[in-house]
Amino acid sequence: MDTTAVQPSSRPGGRTARTRAAVRDATLAELATQGYAGLSVEAVAARSGVHKTTVYRRWGGVDGLVVDALALADEDGWTPPDTGSFERDLRELVREVVATFADPGEAAAPTAFVAAAFQSPRAAAALHEFFAERHRRSAAVVTRAVTRGEVPEGTDAAAVVKAAVAPVYHRVLIAGEAATREMADQSAAVVAHGARAGLYA
Amino acid sequence: MDTTAVQPSSRPGGRTARTRAAVRDATLAELATQGYAGLSVEAVAARSGVHKTTVYRRWGGVDGLVVDALALADEDGWTPPDTGSFERDLRELVREVVATFADPGEAAAPTAFVAAAFQSPRAAAALHEFFAERHRRSAAVVTRAVTRGEVPEGTDAAAVVKAAVAPVYHRVLIAGEAATREMADQSAAVVAHGARAGLYA
Repeated sequence: MDTTAVQPSSRPGGRTARTRAAVRDATLAELATQGYAGLSVEAVAARSGVHKTTVYRRWGGVDGLVVDALALADEDGWTPPDTGSFERDLRELVREVVATFADPGEAAAPTAFVAAAFQSPRAAAALHEFFAERHRRSAAVVTRAVTRGEVPEGTDAAAVVKAAVAPVYHRVLIAGEAATREMADQSAAVVAHGARAGLYA
Repeated sequence: MDTTAVQPSSRPGGRTARTRAAVRDATLAELATQGYAGLSVEAVAARSGVHKTTVYRRWGGVDGLVVDALALADEDGWTPPDTGSFERDLRELVREVVATFADPGEAAAPTAFVAAAFQSPRAAAALHEFFAERHRRSAAVVTRAVTRGEVPEGTDAAAVVKAAVAPVYHRVLIAGEAATREMADQSAAVVAHGARAGLYA
């Protein structure tokens, strides 16, 4: 499909934007209930109230729907915690991930995106870009800590952020265990301790 | 299917064991090339040289094949590194995971198992049991370190092991990045530093 098709020109808040949001919401709902294997343009069209031929024309197919849902997630204006303390920022960041996976309603979409990435190279590319952007934004937690003198200059901000959240993703999506607030705090404490000691520099 | 079907009675090294190993190898090869979605009893039968009706009778279907391949992986006698040093053990352990994912031939089967777990509750249960058993065996790295006085009594061995390997799984299977030996060593160093400081106790 034409990759420009997933970026419909739109006045913000206009009809195109509303259509895109409706299709995105329907895609997330279908992904959450059917998974990637069960995702269909027909079901997304029916759920969103957008005509099937419009969905095909603008999004091309299921891969285009997944890619656009992730692109919209990227545009959500999310910023990392900014509490004034490195370890507290890191803790809040990891707790956010735990909270997402602790709520079945919230967990369904990210879980389905990760599952989709195993089955579709286009979904994988979009998901990896989504995570890369999240990690870039989260790096502010570390760069602010460097400015405050809490961690050494030259600390690899992306490595710190990824190490802090990794145990949550590993438990929930790989090892099949529940993630808890206690393990979030433990992960943040260990990674902050290591960063302060210069182990990520 | 009857769950006893995945545990054929066998003399060790006998014909049943050879059949089971051939079917397991064919399952891994099919999983690696076709993924779980493309796995079929017919293809496993053809590749293993075991008759299709025998595969259906003993393994029941694709879920039974995946579950048994994981059960056999569990019986591999794997033990964690034992170098005499806590941090070196942890480093070797994380490097093993990095090495597995750095080799496309070796990475294919574990990647396919994780993908299968998103699509099949039985595959998920078998994979989670596989990881739980790996983490139980790996805990020896920490209990030996406690005995040597390298880390405090009461250190949560499973939490240490999972925290050390998590960044590798997170990068490769979730964030879509390469895992390197440098990040393995960094993860081991940070987690060892935290464990020595009592942050997992």
